Amino acid sequence: KLFIDTGKDEVFSLIQALNIRVTLTPVLPTRALRSDLTTFMNEWRPMFSRFHVIIVKDPDLKEELKIPEGFNLDVYGKPDIDQVVGSSTSILFSGYSCRYFGYLVSRKKYIISVDDDCLPARDPKGFLVDAVAQHISNLTNPATPFFFNTLYDPYAEGADFVRGYPFSLRGGVKCALSCGLWLNLADHDAPTQALKARQRNSRYVDAVMTVPARSLIPISGINIAFEREAVGPALVPALKLAGEGKCRWETMEDIWSGLCVKIVCDHLGLGVKTGLPYIWRTDRGDPIASLKKEWEGVKLMEEVIPFFQSVRLPREATTVEECIIEVANAVKERLGSMDPVFARAAKAMLDWVKLWQSVGSSS
Amino acid sequence: KLFIDTGKDEVFSLIQALNIRVTLTPVLPTRALRSDLTTFMNEWRPMFSRFHVIIVKDPDLKEELKIPEGFNLDVYGKPDIDQVVGSSTSILFSGYSCRYFGYLVSRKKYIISVDDDCLPARDPKGFLVDAVAQHISNLTNPATPFFFNTLYDPYAEGADFVRGYPFSLRGGVKCALSCGLWLNLADHDAPTQALKARQRNSRYVDAVMTVPARSLIPISGINIAFEREAVGPALVPALKLAGEGKCRWETMEDIWSGLCVKIVCDHLGLGVKTGLPYIWRTDRGDPIASLKKEWEGVKLMEEVIPFFQSVRLPREATTVEECIIEVANAVKERLGSMDPVFARAAKAMLDWVKLWQSVGSSS
Repeated sequence: KLFIDTGKDEVFSLIQALNIRVTLTPVLPTRALRSDLTTFMNEWRPMFSRFHVIIVKDPDLKEELKIPEGFNLDVYGKPDIDQVVGSSTSILFSGYSCRYFGYLVSRKKYIISVDDDCLPARDPKGFLVDAVAQHISNLTNPATPFFFNTLYDPYAEGADFVRGYPFSLRGGVKCALSCGLWLNLADHDAPTQALKARQRNSRYVDAVMTVPARSLIPISGINIAFEREAVGPALVPALKLAGEGKCRWETMEDIWSGLCVKIVCDHLGLGVKTGLPYIWRTDRGDPIASLKKEWEGVKLMEEVIPFFQSVRLPREATTVEECIIEVANAVKERLGSMDPVFARAAKAMLDWVKLWQSVGSSS
Repeated sequence: KLFIDTGKDEVFSLIQALNIRVTLTPVLPTRALRSDLTTFMNEWRPMFSRFHVIIVKDPDLKEELKIPEGFNLDVYGKPDIDQVVGSSTSILFSGYSCRYFGYLVSRKKYIISVDDDCLPARDPKGFLVDAVAQHISNLTNPATPFFFNTLYDPYAEGADFVRGYPFSLRGGVKCALSCGLWLNLADHDAPTQALKARQRNSRYVDAVMTVPARSLIPISGINIAFEREAVGPALVPALKLAGEGKCRWETMEDIWSGLCVKIVCDHLGLGVKTGLPYIWRTDRGDPIASLKKEWEGVKLMEEVIPFFQSVRLPREATTVEECIIEVANAVKERLGSMDPVFARAAKAMLDWVKLWQSVGSSS
């Protein structure tokens, strides 16, 4: 993308017209911890009905799912998981990790993942937010991880690069992952939620940003989108806490996979964005009760972060799969002796790559 | 700042109450390129009148300044500059660089710098933005450069750290520099402005963020605040373009000093924030006419950025002054032969440190 400085709108329009877009084929794997999905699916109908939807039923959930009519969808449950994955793997698709089964079996270019306790949000003007359209926009526009643009997403309408932004970096790189945010209930950990039980997030920040290279973020899996072939194998259900429960703050699987994705993206020159779209997250669970369970995860983070900040991938690792194998080996070597949870995570990562190669990569 | 997980509001209130604040003594050096400051000062009166104001008159400006009554202010002009700085220096305080004279002679803890073509902005609800209060809040609350918080400023009201943010990093570090943004006219370069002549920035992004460590940003000097003793010597009027003019996009002195500040902050473990507060920037200048002048600057950036991205400061450099001397020497060595503008910049940086030590550091 060259910046043609002509001062003439006709020329600029011409260049814009040349900006050929890829065909969009997004898929929406939602996951079901609750059996009645009527409200969820009906609220999301305006955004979901145009696309292929995958619903993955938590294998621990016994009741039948209730899903309204009018969607192009596939539902997967325990029998499907057993059939596709078999018993020869360390990967468990229970609870929040059931979403990863959807990632594995989807054959679409873009995957958008929304949890079943989320509804469409409204922007400050009262308009319904089309989270699907925003995620697709985030993924199809370049990311700019190598220099910080203070004017936020330079590709957004009405925005651009700030004075001083090097022209050689304005083309950006492919955006592989888009992380959305939550209104109402923000993504806090159990201690914070317990301490600020009545606090709700009503701040709508109208921005999308690229997370700079070499800067880590803890990704939530509740409202994300990604390009399947670019980073699918890096979104791995690996870190399973011993006392993991069915509340968001009792798990860490998405934070771990987010750290994996980010270092892989940094290594491969891909971008990660955060910000819009917001979803509306409804309340669930008792943070005080969750506190004991998650405290283990909170303590683990203090070991995990220095590891991810310092791990370096070899130049020879040029595919996502190779990168994840390298990370898994480093986890085993450097974290394995600290806590059995890490050795299990390393094993799950290696198994996930194998699984992806046999199941996930066929189109 | 320890996170005391008690689940009890009383305990938390107690901890909050212990959070002792420093005495605030901000100063506002504005700079005057235009002689009639009546509208400017009157519009800013609600925010400025409580503080000490420094007005630095562009030495090239011949007319008398018109300043309304009712402020605690000092005005500096060419005779003052000549007297304080003398003739034995390479530093020129003309045009946009006149602001740096205010930084030098101020004796206050915090400095807020606002240009004379800026007026107070209004937030989306129509309330006047108190840019001074927001900058002071940015500077007195910690920055978090070592891990990305997707929930924006964790210290803002109603906000916190995202799940997965390591507790050991939640205390943050001192924020040394706060960079505000512009509504109406955004901070574009001349080519962008020429191409999008009618575009205005109306997007109010309600966020403050810490710029991650090792990520560079091109700082604008038009709406910034900083802690004088922490980073004052790094805000240096060094890069003077050969064809520098009196329009913002014809200069690069602030981008250069911003790059200097950022690498010094990264080295010393200080933070830089960007985002709120917005100011309303009025139109001025003809971008097409400026284009030829700034094109030189735009090309220089392609050399400047790789330099700043790769420069490493030695462990022995523990003060801002020492850091700037190291950067100046590296500029001379690695960029000096490319363009005479860089050799002059290196010289100005060394002179600036000397000047700061003799004039700026006395309180």
